[in-house]
Amino acid sequence: MEPIRIGIIGGNGYGGMELIRLLLNHPCAELYCLVSRSEAGRRVDDVFPHFRGQLDQRFQSAEENELDGCDVVFFATPNGVAMHQAPAMLDQGIKIIDLAADFRLRDPALWAQWYGQPHACPELLSEAVYGLPELNRAAIAQAHLVANPGCYPTAVILGFWPLIRAGVAGSAPLIADAKSGVSGAGRSVVVGNLLAELSENFRAYGVSGHRHLPEIRQALEVTSGEMPNLVFVPHVVPMIRGIHATCYSVVSSDVDLQALYENAYRDEPFVDVLGTGSHPETRSVRGANFCRIAVHRPPQSGYAVVLSVIDNLVKGAAGQAVQNMNLMFGLPETSGLNSPPIVP
Amino acid sequence: MEPIRIGIIGGNGYGGMELIRLLLNHPCAELYCLVSRSEAGRRVDDVFPHFRGQLDQRFQSAEENELDGCDVVFFATPNGVAMHQAPAMLDQGIKIIDLAADFRLRDPALWAQWYGQPHACPELLSEAVYGLPELNRAAIAQAHLVANPGCYPTAVILGFWPLIRAGVAGSAPLIADAKSGVSGAGRSVVVGNLLAELSENFRAYGVSGHRHLPEIRQALEVTSGEMPNLVFVPHVVPMIRGIHATCYSVVSSDVDLQALYENAYRDEPFVDVLGTGSHPETRSVRGANFCRIAVHRPPQSGYAVVLSVIDNLVKGAAGQAVQNMNLMFGLPETSGLNSPPIVP
Amino acid sequence: MEPIRIGIIGGNGYGGMELIRLLLNHPCAELYCLVSRSEAGRRVDDVFPHFRGQLDQRFQSAEENELDGCDVVFFATPNGVAMHQAPAMLDQGIKIIDLAADFRLRDPALWAQWYGQPHACPELLSEAVYGLPELNRAAIAQAHLVANPGCYPTAVILGFWPLIRAGVAGSAPLIADAKSGVSGAGRSVVVGNLLAELSENFRAYGVSGHRHLPEIRQALEVTSGEMPNLVFVPHVVPMIRGIHATCYSVVSSDVDLQALYENAYRDEPFVDVLGTGSHPETRSVRGANFCRIAVHRPPQSGYAVVLSVIDNLVKGAAGQAVQNMNLMFGLPETSGLNSPPIVP
Amino acid sequence: MEPIRIGIIGGNGYGGMELIRLLLNHPCAELYCLVSRSEAGRRVDDVFPHFRGQLDQRFQSAEENELDGCDVVFFATPNGVAMHQAPAMLDQGIKIIDLAADFRLRDPALWAQWYGQPHACPELLSEAVYGLPELNRAAIAQAHLVANPGCYPTAVILGFWPLIRAGVAGSAPLIADAKSGVSGAGRSVVVGNLLAELSENFRAYGVSGHRHLPEIRQALEVTSGEMPNLVFVPHVVPMIRGIHATCYSVVSSDVDLQALYENAYRDEPFVDVLGTGSHPETRSVRGANFCRIAVHRPPQSGYAVVLSVIDNLVKGAAGQAVQNMNLMFGLPETSGLNSPPIVP
Repeated sequence: MEPIRIGIIGGNGYGGMELIRLLLNHPCAELYCLVSRSEAGRRVDDVFPHFRGQLDQRFQSAEENELDGCDVVFFATPNGVAMHQAPAMLDQGIKIIDLAADFRLRDPALWAQWYGQPHACPELLSEAVYGLPELNRAAIAQAHLVANPGCYPTAVILGFWPLIRAGVAGSAPLIADAKSGVSGAGRSVVVGNLLAELSENFRAYGVSGHRHLPEIRQALEVTSGEMPNLVFVPHVVPMIRGIHATCYSVVSSDVDLQALYENAYRDEPFVDVLGTGSHPETRSVRGANFCRIAVHRPPQSGYAVVLSVIDNLVKGAAGQAVQNMNLMFGLPETSGLNSPPIVP
Repeated sequence: MEPIRIGIIGGNGYGGMELIRLLLNHPCAELYCLVSRSEAGRRVDDVFPHFRGQLDQRFQSAEENELDGCDVVFFATPNGVAMHQAPAMLDQGIKIIDLAADFRLRDPALWAQWYGQPHACPELLSEAVYGLPELNRAAIAQAHLVANPGCYPTAVILGFWPLIRAGVAGSAPLIADAKSGVSGAGRSVVVGNLLAELSENFRAYGVSGHRHLPEIRQALEVTSGEMPNLVFVPHVVPMIRGIHATCYSVVSSDVDLQALYENAYRDEPFVDVLGTGSHPETRSVRGANFCRIAVHRPPQSGYAVVLSVIDNLVKGAAGQAVQNMNLMFGLPETSGLNSPPIVP
Repeated sequence: MEPIRIGIIGGNGYGGMELIRLLLNHPCAELYCLVSRSEAGRRVDDVFPHFRGQLDQRFQSAEENELDGCDVVFFATPNGVAMHQAPAMLDQGIKIIDLAADFRLRDPALWAQWYGQPHACPELLSEAVYGLPELNRAAIAQAHLVANPGCYPTAVILGFWPLIRAGVAGSAPLIADAKSGVSGAGRSVVVGNLLAELSENFRAYGVSGHRHLPEIRQALEVTSGEMPNLVFVPHVVPMIRGIHATCYSVVSSDVDLQALYENAYRDEPFVDVLGTGSHPETRSVRGANFCRIAVHRPPQSGYAVVLSVIDNLVKGAAGQAVQNMNLMFGLPETSGLNSPPIVP
Repeated sequence: MEPIRIGIIGGNGYGGMELIRLLLNHPCAELYCLVSRSEAGRRVDDVFPHFRGQLDQRFQSAEENELDGCDVVFFATPNGVAMHQAPAMLDQGIKIIDLAADFRLRDPALWAQWYGQPHACPELLSEAVYGLPELNRAAIAQAHLVANPGCYPTAVILGFWPLIRAGVAGSAPLIADAKSGVSGAGRSVVVGNLLAELSENFRAYGVSGHRHLPEIRQALEVTSGEMPNLVFVPHVVPMIRGIHATCYSVVSSDVDLQALYENAYRDEPFVDVLGTGSHPETRSVRGANFCRIAVHRPPQSGYAVVLSVIDNLVKGAAGQAVQNMNLMFGLPETSGLNSPPIVP
């Protein structure tokens, strides 16, 4: 079989770096064109010395048109870039997986409200498939345009989904108290991301509203048929990788939560339901595409507490993008995603 | 004025170290007797070289009876130690501040259930005063035996208290999603506390039940007259110091939360209510006795989200113990506790 | 080809965990028998949940004799274990790779002096091959017993070796100022390895003498024919993985150091000489088997300064052990060792 | 006594923040004018919420002329700022302590070479006193303009000084292998200072030449009368605060190094020589103005190895500046600098 010709736009951010790392290990992928506006012309392994000996390419500018030869293009760009380039690429028959948020919300008005600009190609929003394979596997396999989910939404949706699907979540608002390592903020060069500011420190942010809130609500609405009320509070953890979502929902007392979760994810290659009483650690998925989940019912509380961990750069970004690519190209879903996590 | 003669039992744990640090700065305290069973006979600054040049003493064994000369004894020992020694000391007229949990619960049966042993002096439980000055200032000033609150309870109770006192918390269970640096586990030498296990990692623990749960519930019941339902989920953050409690409560929509919190803590020297829209950082209290709080109301959620941060070793342990000592001896409440936090 | 049947003794330490991780990815290896005294009978993925979904085995006790069926046994045990079991295994035709220090020194008296006990099988010391492929590739390929080098020695020897081999190091003592992440201390449960003790902290240790000193000197003596004088100072860095050796040697001014190093390692798959003026980072080899080196000549100093980084658990332990196994079994030297480093 | 009226220029960097922290504790200081160009007009505790409740001021612009009323002005600015403002201030009778490098080198040509610009007031270079009290106490007490030493130079000079002063360092070049926490780089917003880039990582930098090299050499030359040869290699440690200098010098075998160091620093309030065989930790000086030193002589090496630790923001910057201020104003040298280090 011919290898899949891969293009990556925004290859010099963390999402792009992780795509390169995973695709170097992929049996059917060829890194065909790596685009970085800021690093165009430089060798990739000059920008990222950890790739020395692994590849022999230069970053290209977006204008070099080598993207034309790609079978699939990954956008690992800031929000608002892919929507300008996607229509022409799709016309050329190139498949697109957008790791940013451009195609995640189906409602262009909602998108404009949360992202502060009008959407450039609202007509594509209904065509784009939300790339969470555990919910949308069949549609992804047919898709030309996949909106790769956000990191928080991946952890939170997979945490709540069995409850929502089974209709056992009570009417009280869901609460998602989420914690992320700092690579989730990308390589943004702001004071707040300095080690001297973040290390030995912990804080919440965006309590009054975060862009991942409407994304989570939309996915759960698709599942249940009604828009859930949700409180979503993100926090930043002084570590590089990992998301831990602690998800709270009222549940009725007669549900066997452990069985519910085990059944929901029984056939999923990348969702692992831990045994009763477990507490998943973020390091248990470091560098790997797993989501590990444990479900608890604190005594007399009436609540289910679901603990859900992912590596924000893998199942929360690049790994899930590769999983989607595998589905889109008819490959085994786990191709290139078999390496175990790195611990310690 | 004669300095207060201080005894510290368990001087070689983190609580004891922090008491020494704070009391070295205290204008009216004399470190009179430092007891450590494991380090008895060694110079304090040999065990803790960071104290070189600050004090000139040796750790003593508990048998040396120098404690007899103390005005107050701090127990910085494991749970279950103070209750065996307290009665005799109180008989001698020595005041006691217990940083462990021996005197925190008023119900001896509940204590025995959570701490796995019968209580050794249940008759003292009703006499002991729960040492949270913001709730119990007057009683602490009269007390001979103070139960210094746990670290999580300090952050969580101060977070919920204005809501409970005002009776504006709805009937849904309260949720306290709490995160702590690892010094909260003390100097316990277990695999799980190694840097190579904890760093670059985040996890919950004790979801099915944590000893701080009944302590928090008791304090809030005293305030409101009824036992609140509470879900309490602690997590460990890869940092040394700091607790961040994210507290969720249903509230009715007509309450001015910002004013409620500002009024509740207006005269408190160590509780700082941040302005609207703020997100307190744990580092903002590092090494200092403050609790900083921000209160939010996510749109359309019906919930209040209260963010409450302390340094678990200061306001969550040794600093609060010194604050209690100041009250018990009629000193200005802030004596020895004025140093600003250390940032970065 | 039949897969190589692998035994690992001491599978529950960091060295053992890393062997499992790497061998799960190896195309010709079968994890046949994993021995752990303390965890015998437990599922491996129960002890290490990050391996869930990757393997389906239990730890065995040493007595279960399944080791008999192995082609090769890795000892990832404390010093002084392998020397008691090696002779019988070698008699059975099992190849041995010892990640501990039992067979690293050729002189049994020197070994006894540094390791505090007599050597149990001194007759094997001359037969054992020091497993640093860059120096001993041919001998390793013929070996039945390989002494896998220490982590510091790997970084330091590869740093100095081109100078020593070329005879351009001056007569002044060599200085190796080395820094290691804490996983180098293993999962030892001592106060000094707690996160609350190590994080936000840096210190030297063992300045008066460290066991890796005679190991480094022996390897350099084999190269040059004379025992070098060496000052070796290790330090502990508040991070999990990585060693950085800063190596100082007087050199004469007419040597082209860059060319010397590039030539020395031109054909080495796992030693990467960076361009002039570079500073290798430990993260650039995280999780991978590379040693990256840069060589500098500070102006007017008369010194060469060589910067050498490895992942202490990979090129400094388990990865190098797999590299040795590949050589011993006639496999491509890089089998199972191709995954790129994980950054960030 | 009237409090000393303090001005701080560059109050919003780490040096400025630390000056504020220390001077808030100082018995004779009044924070009179805090200048920050970028934050002018904002409340200090709005910019730095950890100072809430500690002070009640706003940052001023440099133009507001409140500096005129100051007794002393600290420059916590980038290199090249103080030299433009110092002459006019000195003319007004304001004393100056420059935490930057403008007045550290006596030779204007050398300064221009290392700092990439001509010096703006070379005539002041001979008048400026290098503010290392252990070497220059008497001169500092008389000075109007003090050049506060760099962080690395403080640790390295105090490490080598007893050897140099006693004339027992051999003729081989001195080697200073130094390691610093990241706050040494200031609040510079560059990719390389992000937590996601620095954490779990270690590297050297500036091996070919660092600005602190000529500063160290100058101080040692003043002591010995001849310019020492020195190799200086700085490294960055993934922690916020702390410098560890590992200093190597050939020494003759008959010198009692321990006695030499103890005698050299016997009367120094802020230099602590640890007992034989010790390894000082950077955390043992966290937040405090101490330099702790241990001296070793590895067997048969001919070398002395001196381990010297400071907090780069205290003894390496703001604390030493306050120590200098105390000397310049005839106060006890330790005023405001008595708080013990914060551990853990």
